[in-house]
Amino acid sequence: MSMNSFGHLFRVTTWGESHGPALGATVDGCPPGVPVTPEMIQHWLDKRKPGQNKFTTQRREADEVKILSGVFEGVTTGTPVQLMIENTDQRSKDYGDIKDKFRPGHADITYFQKYGIRDYRGGGRSSARETASRVAAGGLAREAIMAMAPGVQITGYMVQMGPHQIDRTAFDWDQIEQNPFWVPDARAASDWATYLDGLRKSGSSVGAIIEVVARGVPAGIGAPVYGKLDTDLSAAMMSINAVKGVEIGEGMSAAMLTGEANADEIYMGNDGQPRYSSNHAGGILGGISTGQDIVVRFAVKPTSSILTTRKTITKNGEETEIITKGRHDPCVGIRAVPVGEAMMACVILDHLLLHRGQVGENRGIIG
Amino acid sequence: MSMNSFGHLFRVTTWGESHGPALGATVDGCPPGVPVTPEMIQHWLDKRKPGQNKFTTQRREADEVKILSGVFEGVTTGTPVQLMIENTDQRSKDYGDIKDKFRPGHADITYFQKYGIRDYRGGGRSSARETASRVAAGGLAREAIMAMAPGVQITGYMVQMGPHQIDRTAFDWDQIEQNPFWVPDARAASDWATYLDGLRKSGSSVGAIIEVVARGVPAGIGAPVYGKLDTDLSAAMMSINAVKGVEIGEGMSAAMLTGEANADEIYMGNDGQPRYSSNHAGGILGGISTGQDIVVRFAVKPTSSILTTRKTITKNGEETEIITKGRHDPCVGIRAVPVGEAMMACVILDHLLLHRGQVGENRGIIG
Amino acid sequence: MSMNSFGHLFRVTTWGESHGPALGATVDGCPPGVPVTPEMIQHWLDKRKPGQNKFTTQRREADEVKILSGVFEGVTTGTPVQLMIENTDQRSKDYGDIKDKFRPGHADITYFQKYGIRDYRGGGRSSARETASRVAAGGLAREAIMAMAPGVQITGYMVQMGPHQIDRTAFDWDQIEQNPFWVPDARAASDWATYLDGLRKSGSSVGAIIEVVARGVPAGIGAPVYGKLDTDLSAAMMSINAVKGVEIGEGMSAAMLTGEANADEIYMGNDGQPRYSSNHAGGILGGISTGQDIVVRFAVKPTSSILTTRKTITKNGEETEIITKGRHDPCVGIRAVPVGEAMMACVILDHLLLHRGQVGENRGIIG
Amino acid sequence: MSMNSFGHLFRVTTWGESHGPALGATVDGCPPGVPVTPEMIQHWLDKRKPGQNKFTTQRREADEVKILSGVFEGVTTGTPVQLMIENTDQRSKDYGDIKDKFRPGHADITYFQKYGIRDYRGGGRSSARETASRVAAGGLAREAIMAMAPGVQITGYMVQMGPHQIDRTAFDWDQIEQNPFWVPDARAASDWATYLDGLRKSGSSVGAIIEVVARGVPAGIGAPVYGKLDTDLSAAMMSINAVKGVEIGEGMSAAMLTGEANADEIYMGNDGQPRYSSNHAGGILGGISTGQDIVVRFAVKPTSSILTTRKTITKNGEETEIITKGRHDPCVGIRAVPVGEAMMACVILDHLLLHRGQVGENRGIIG
Repeated sequence: MSMNSFGHLFRVTTWGESHGPALGATVDGCPPGVPVTPEMIQHWLDKRKPGQNKFTTQRREADEVKILSGVFEGVTTGTPVQLMIENTDQRSKDYGDIKDKFRPGHADITYFQKYGIRDYRGGGRSSARETASRVAAGGLAREAIMAMAPGVQITGYMVQMGPHQIDRTAFDWDQIEQNPFWVPDARAASDWATYLDGLRKSGSSVGAIIEVVARGVPAGIGAPVYGKLDTDLSAAMMSINAVKGVEIGEGMSAAMLTGEANADEIYMGNDGQPRYSSNHAGGILGGISTGQDIVVRFAVKPTSSILTTRKTITKNGEETEIITKGRHDPCVGIRAVPVGEAMMACVILDHLLLHRGQVGENRGIIG
Repeated sequence: MSMNSFGHLFRVTTWGESHGPALGATVDGCPPGVPVTPEMIQHWLDKRKPGQNKFTTQRREADEVKILSGVFEGVTTGTPVQLMIENTDQRSKDYGDIKDKFRPGHADITYFQKYGIRDYRGGGRSSARETASRVAAGGLAREAIMAMAPGVQITGYMVQMGPHQIDRTAFDWDQIEQNPFWVPDARAASDWATYLDGLRKSGSSVGAIIEVVARGVPAGIGAPVYGKLDTDLSAAMMSINAVKGVEIGEGMSAAMLTGEANADEIYMGNDGQPRYSSNHAGGILGGISTGQDIVVRFAVKPTSSILTTRKTITKNGEETEIITKGRHDPCVGIRAVPVGEAMMACVILDHLLLHRGQVGENRGIIG
Repeated sequence: MSMNSFGHLFRVTTWGESHGPALGATVDGCPPGVPVTPEMIQHWLDKRKPGQNKFTTQRREADEVKILSGVFEGVTTGTPVQLMIENTDQRSKDYGDIKDKFRPGHADITYFQKYGIRDYRGGGRSSARETASRVAAGGLAREAIMAMAPGVQITGYMVQMGPHQIDRTAFDWDQIEQNPFWVPDARAASDWATYLDGLRKSGSSVGAIIEVVARGVPAGIGAPVYGKLDTDLSAAMMSINAVKGVEIGEGMSAAMLTGEANADEIYMGNDGQPRYSSNHAGGILGGISTGQDIVVRFAVKPTSSILTTRKTITKNGEETEIITKGRHDPCVGIRAVPVGEAMMACVILDHLLLHRGQVGENRGIIG
Repeated sequence: MSMNSFGHLFRVTTWGESHGPALGATVDGCPPGVPVTPEMIQHWLDKRKPGQNKFTTQRREADEVKILSGVFEGVTTGTPVQLMIENTDQRSKDYGDIKDKFRPGHADITYFQKYGIRDYRGGGRSSARETASRVAAGGLAREAIMAMAPGVQITGYMVQMGPHQIDRTAFDWDQIEQNPFWVPDARAASDWATYLDGLRKSGSSVGAIIEVVARGVPAGIGAPVYGKLDTDLSAAMMSINAVKGVEIGEGMSAAMLTGEANADEIYMGNDGQPRYSSNHAGGILGGISTGQDIVVRFAVKPTSSILTTRKTITKNGEETEIITKGRHDPCVGIRAVPVGEAMMACVILDHLLLHRGQVGENRGIIG
């Protein structure tokens, strides 16, 4: 049992701090024979990489992944895959003047209260930099999924930034890759750029909501009652830095529905498979996939590193004030999009393997 | 690894179906020497017990817990505690006419697609009846917490039913035990009774939002980065039947805040301990408790067993219609209140033990 | 993580004390659709049941198993199977006069030192009675194996009792079921009866070595490097009460071999599958099955409950003497035979499932 | 659940192949505040390092450990510690001519049968080189034990090589560090050198038995019934390459004892603590430590890489012969000594943490 691991059969353990020599993911349980190269993993890391535009932290990191084990002659061997990313732009000195102060809204104080250790260098283990390891592991998971269930597609996008929501009637999958916010709505992309630029200049920050959808997931994966697919997705998303809420399908709004409105009616598709009149369930019933789109949303709070003076205390218990001068993200939710996708990929793969383990390739056939 | 287990050191495995001979919880890792009697556990089960008023299912169950192991001469021995509840009012015949039909919004279809088995007797393992086991385990966890950290108090209550929210300015802890909805707001209790009675008579159902608060939890419990306190709470709540969303502190609304608004400022209390100007964090930063109230909310979707005809299919793939005539809950969220409390208790205890294991009794002392 | 559980995907948690109301096994991860009845499980329990002849404890237990969950209409549902055995002949009073004394060679003292609890009733959780739960779980595992890999046969037998070893040249599978010691050697069976009867009458006890063989296990199951098949088998056997040593294949004697003598040469069988010139490896190389017989041996120490006066102390730290008058086994190794088989069955099934999960049905095909 | 991990709270995952760029150990759950430097870890790695004398493989590896995470300003932070060792002398070409052949007695064939992958470069993951990661993790465990239970001392030594056993009456702790075999018997050291030199020159190899003793371990650690201290030790030792048997205390010989001979009598020491007349139990009763020396032995089979021609097959199913020309160890048991110590250290630390987690600092006090 490691508190820095997740997954049952596809087991990911991340390690490393934001200002240590390196960080990475130790991934065990990957099926053998999956084609994988550093470039395949790098593709997803580049998506998350900071400093790509003015809306993300100006820290410059190559985020270059090295595969140290578990891959031989271009395919996975079935043994642990070590994915390492060396830190190159560590600039610890940026943090020297807040060395003994706790940043409000940040894990500084709780890590100190737990461990008695103050790693002041940019948050240490609690830094968003840890998510690079997740994205690397997610890249590997995607390749393994492609080998097992080639129809699966996993896509994340932003649906809310601060008070601004997307227009669902204008939803356009093709827009997602066209703007720095991964927004499926061209107008939102444009409006949000103006909005966030203002926040950035004032040294402020704002929260966001990310939605991640997995299409083409076969019915029948997931497992009652504590290893449900939605339980694992919920834990996976909540474990991402700064996430404060997770929703499946209708999410918190399910509270407002009546039974009639909520229950997705079932009919038979032309292909002899069940179809649903709606997807309030978000593709999961009783913790098991229905075959519909799996829909997860999570809310990311605003970065706690801001340029406004805030009241705080030192580790010696003195009251003081703090301004965070380190490079930071005005909306850390942006870079959470590829992270959410990675977590979805890891969870889906894990449950594909679990299902195959317990039940085999066959499933209950309807009709 | 069991998919029907949760917890790291305080490990709970539930078993049993709604219409089998019995169900229960196998609980391992409980500290030794904790005073516990069947009556202490029964107290919490009685709170969840169905049929207590017209707003919950009319199934009559004594829900009498038996302690089959792990307790000797009135205290826990440190070995597994088996908590068994025999089913007494099973009335399987109620379900005979929906034997081959899948209820929309229910796990019938996905269990069948996963396992190829149709346990038509009231939902089998996916029934809300499974939560009795959780409540029993939670009762044990409460006693163990009392022995380790006597200041901890765990209380759940309903904050929303359908479109109706409580008035936070009228919040009254003492009201919670005074009404069938566990609502901390006398007026809401009254209004909701009328509202739900209407729904009940029409054979409909509605969702709800439950909030669970743990007060007095010491700072420093929880663990980065996948075994975070909020990650585990999120999984614990999402694993409850019908839950579709989970929030910590500000929850999904964190997306709307700026960094200035979100970060709880810190100052020193008169007792030399850190205090916070607000609690947007819900008592958790970086996955570790701050010492503030731990605040979790979850949304429960409406029961899918309703008296309105709905379109569905049979397990042979024929389109048909269904009406669920079994006894049911117009708002299953009501009985989710003690369940949410139980899950909170189990998670808090687990992290108290984990912290003591890794770090010992001492923590980083501020000041 | 439960310290009272074993297995990865086929996960068994046992619970219960020798003198509580019941004990049992909570088994999760069983494949669905496996035909199983109480009678099928009972068959194996009857084999372990005490009091069947003069060589095992005279405690009279029906050891009747009840299946409380996870089986519906005669097949497993894929959800947890609860196997309960009620204690009927508890006679706690037998133990009253040793209430405060620790039996030398017994876990009394260490349980007390660990937990601060003295469950004097026949050893509580450390009693050999716990192994009934294992045998029940093993019975279920056998049925699941039969469904997945019907060629597998698991057989245990005794190869040494005290100083007496079997004659390997006279090995006869058919003898095993013909004598109370499960010995594959008719002459040994006869000689040992005389020997053990003498020991029994003098109130003494003696150790034994059990060998368990799994034939027909496909090549390729097991997993490097800490979840090796032999690692898991070793843990499984060592976890049985009173076991002090475990061997795979050549076992401790491997130390005496040269590389030439040890390495089993490989050739091709008529069926196009690899064959080996010998089986020093015990069917496992690098933690993975070779397709040869899997051979495990374990040594069981003599029962510590004997009728000779021994020096000991009380829980108050006073020196004293003790004679154990409770019913006991002169050679507890006899009843360890079905227990060892059960553990082998559970481990084999677990690794069949694990292999299917990670790799699927196909394996590396030679030739 | 990772098959390449062990430990419950102190959780070690090793990764890496013998001929990849690097290998290492990802260690989670280490207590915070433990002083640790690369030099402290290196000390133990140097003990295992190959090529130090003519009795171990001539592969030249610096085996230099790098601490990539989890240590800040000279102490552990409580977050994952990544210990990496880069491979520098990989010489893959040595293995080219056995590329398609399986070495008898080696995991080549089973890895291929399991994964369908042939990593011919020196055994890949199944190489003894993997044990360097264990030694690094064990070095960290030792430092953590020193902080928690400073009286604990862990020492391994060889007690048998081929047919030659040590003379227990001549046992001398001080000899262990004085000879290349870690033998506590000066005469054996001298005799074995001659014996092994002969084997080495003839290109043969031989097995060995290693004994590891932990002194000063407090009574009360370990946990029934599947996470017993001896169960975990047995799994830990059996997971080491080439190990075929594990014994606790009396081990396999326990089979030959009577109850009178086996049960260690108990009396009170001058310090008011229990003492025992003997230690047949090897310091463990019912899976829990007694406070006596914990004694584990394991047998290592001879290296399968030998210079004698052996019959085997290719991965295409053709019969052929093989001679292994790669550098190899005439007695791989020698380097297993520090590995066994490392595993003991990891298991002891893990159970110290587990005990503190479940029970706290206090234990049942006798007297």
